[in-house]
Amino acid sequence: RINSARLWDSLDAMAQIGPGVAGGNNRQTLTDADSAGRHLFADWCKAAGMTMGVDTMGNMFATRAGTDPDALPVYMGSHLDTQPTGGRYDGVLGVLGALEVVRSLNDMNIQTRHPIVVTNWTNEEGARFAPAMLASGVFAGLHTQDYAYARTDMDGLRFGDELARIGWVGDEVVGARKMHAMLELHIEQGPILEAEGREIGVVTHGQGLWWLEITLTGRDAHTGSTPMNMRVNAGLGMARITERVHQIAMGHQPGAVGAVGQVKVFPNSRNVIPGKVIFTVDIRSPDQTKLDLMRGEVERAAYAVANELGLGCSIEAAGHFDPVTFDPGLVNIVRQSAEKLGYSHMDIISGAGHDACWINRVAPTVMVMCPCVGGLSHNEAEEISPEWATAGTDVLLHAVLEVAGV
Amino acid sequence: RINSARLWDSLDAMAQIGPGVAGGNNRQTLTDADSAGRHLFADWCKAAGMTMGVDTMGNMFATRAGTDPDALPVYMGSHLDTQPTGGRYDGVLGVLGALEVVRSLNDMNIQTRHPIVVTNWTNEEGARFAPAMLASGVFAGLHTQDYAYARTDMDGLRFGDELARIGWVGDEVVGARKMHAMLELHIEQGPILEAEGREIGVVTHGQGLWWLEITLTGRDAHTGSTPMNMRVNAGLGMARITERVHQIAMGHQPGAVGAVGQVKVFPNSRNVIPGKVIFTVDIRSPDQTKLDLMRGEVERAAYAVANELGLGCSIEAAGHFDPVTFDPGLVNIVRQSAEKLGYSHMDIISGAGHDACWINRVAPTVMVMCPCVGGLSHNEAEEISPEWATAGTDVLLHAVLEVAGV
Ligand SMILES: NC(=O)NCCC(=O)O
Ligand SMILES: NC(=O)NCCC(=O)O
Repeated sequence: RINSARLWDSLDAMAQIGPGVAGGNNRQTLTDADSAGRHLFADWCKAAGMTMGVDTMGNMFATRAGTDPDALPVYMGSHLDTQPTGGRYDGVLGVLGALEVVRSLNDMNIQTRHPIVVTNWTNEEGARFAPAMLASGVFAGLHTQDYAYARTDMDGLRFGDELARIGWVGDEVVGARKMHAMLELHIEQGPILEAEGREIGVVTHGQGLWWLEITLTGRDAHTGSTPMNMRVNAGLGMARITERVHQIAMGHQPGAVGAVGQVKVFPNSRNVIPGKVIFTVDIRSPDQTKLDLMRGEVERAAYAVANELGLGCSIEAAGHFDPVTFDPGLVNIVRQSAEKLGYSHMDIISGAGHDACWINRVAPTVMVMCPCVGGLSHNEAEEISPEWATAGTDVLLHAVLEVAGV
Repeated sequence: RINSARLWDSLDAMAQIGPGVAGGNNRQTLTDADSAGRHLFADWCKAAGMTMGVDTMGNMFATRAGTDPDALPVYMGSHLDTQPTGGRYDGVLGVLGALEVVRSLNDMNIQTRHPIVVTNWTNEEGARFAPAMLASGVFAGLHTQDYAYARTDMDGLRFGDELARIGWVGDEVVGARKMHAMLELHIEQGPILEAEGREIGVVTHGQGLWWLEITLTGRDAHTGSTPMNMRVNAGLGMARITERVHQIAMGHQPGAVGAVGQVKVFPNSRNVIPGKVIFTVDIRSPDQTKLDLMRGEVERAAYAVANELGLGCSIEAAGHFDPVTFDPGLVNIVRQSAEKLGYSHMDIISGAGHDACWINRVAPTVMVMCPCVGGLSHNEAEEISPEWATAGTDVLLHAVLEVAGV
């Protein structure tokens, strides 16, 4: 079993870096706080006897040697970046849980046949630079590095420039590493495990997603002196499409979600009818057919609303992944580890996207989930119990021992 | 008749200060650009032989002496501040048209019995600091100066501090001046005069307005892993209320308008269900009963939507004025001036709020309007013809001569 107190202390120490405004964290990717978090993690890895490699996307790989020089490494990890108003555990538990597994192996003097690598993937959240899971996506060959470097944040700053600015451009070629397997521990970020009273979620699948960025173009005009029938109101268009996205997701229940998360209104003045609105739609389903249907429905609804109101409308895909099936052999190992340790468990579908979803394209991957209070995540009030963190990390330890061999 | 070329040159020179991004202006109140515009205007007034007074709200009063030492001054003017993406003529024509009237009187060596004062009112737009017509509102006793000084912009900067920073806190007590009358020339900012083919709008009334700032509070949560039935989506609430505001205004046609102009979404991240949205509603009508009805309907709709979605809802009034009836005697003088000069004209209701609406509470006021292309205003593409500017200013000249006496 892992050392619960040490794990909890490390989670707490990391949460001191990039504090939020309400007890959570704002450690967005490629900020100074992100860099500080990386240094703390790197120091801990060094103290645990691991050697650090960093690739040109800033992905961090801390290696604990194995006994078989020919065996490919087994990877564990997640991400240390957070939402602007994020929780302390989303991603962080997966990285520090993996580190705790290595520390426990050190304590117990256990050597594995395969090397073990603890990873921190850059920009998983996609909050500052869309899309999410950007760097694991480049690693898995879904995006080029040039594409990733050219992504810009709200202030127009480029990913590549910001990565260089915080000093975390490594020398490894992205994706050059070969993996035996990858295991990712993560909080559920949803309400199911807690509601069902289970300590462990054995993640069999991941939902697919489309992020659409919609730009509506109307005409700035005076809110007082422009008659109703002469308005070309991009704000009203955004409102109608937001409602339609909700209805479309409701129409595909169960197994579908949809919302508008980001809205930028121009010129955003009380007495100006909005002449332009840029906003983002997030739709998801574990079912490929539903996902594709919903995308079509949202796009048709957007064009129809634009047509109704005389607005220009352009739609850009800002992120996408298909539903994922995790490696059945690894899924079995996770289930058996939970069983063996006596933790209550259930199979579950991940509602969120994760780095393990992309890496699944180039290596067998699996995820272990633990509950979070009220299903709340992407919220500073995100909370887990030390017992849940311990259960998840114990399962990770046993699963990785099974995969890496003793 | 006034000097059209000189008027047009002055309008063009002022438009060089605080240029916008698309041919218009961003000379928002109490910015450095606002200060530069004030200096240019002050220099012009001095060159025209006027003496400048400035009050503690930064309102500027340039006086041309009259022949009767006991006669109260006749005021003309409007505002030099603009929307963030504003036009070149909104407000500016009223100030520089008034200046052109004085320059023309100088050219023609005409003395008036009453002194004439050309005024630039501070923060008419209300874009940076709500409410609109803030300084004429303090002058007319509707707001206290303390209230005005404490108003904050989006960055939390205070009106009082910004006025001091740009160096335009004058020494006159606000509202101490007594007025014989005030005349304001302004572009229509709507489509009626152009559509009806009239050169002059004789403004008999002004619409009333309510600005409501609505804050909806839901719960930040993950867009992927939060089931639809567990969401408390403040963004969806904003969307529904935006649609209801539109419907409510449509339900009171003719003679009512309504829109949402400003929206701030928190945390405004693609994969976070908005936990908070603050947005502003602008509803107007020339009919007091309709205005009051609409306000009630909007507030009830907002609370009903919040209730539907489980959101917290608070509503704050951020601006208000009742419908205005301009002075019938002055209205007659404007109509007769247009008639005498041979300009086509019609009676019209102002759709926008204007400084003359507030000053109407403390002195007889009236407005002269000229058309603008496509009724477009609060848009950098706002346009007028030199002929329209000339017609409006000619009418202002003749009306002021009638009111101030020769
Ligand atoms: N786990 C997580 O929140 N990932 C961000 C990508 C997503 O929105 O699913
Ligand atoms: N004229 C003008 O645009 N005034 C600003 C106040 C309003 O929105 O009516």
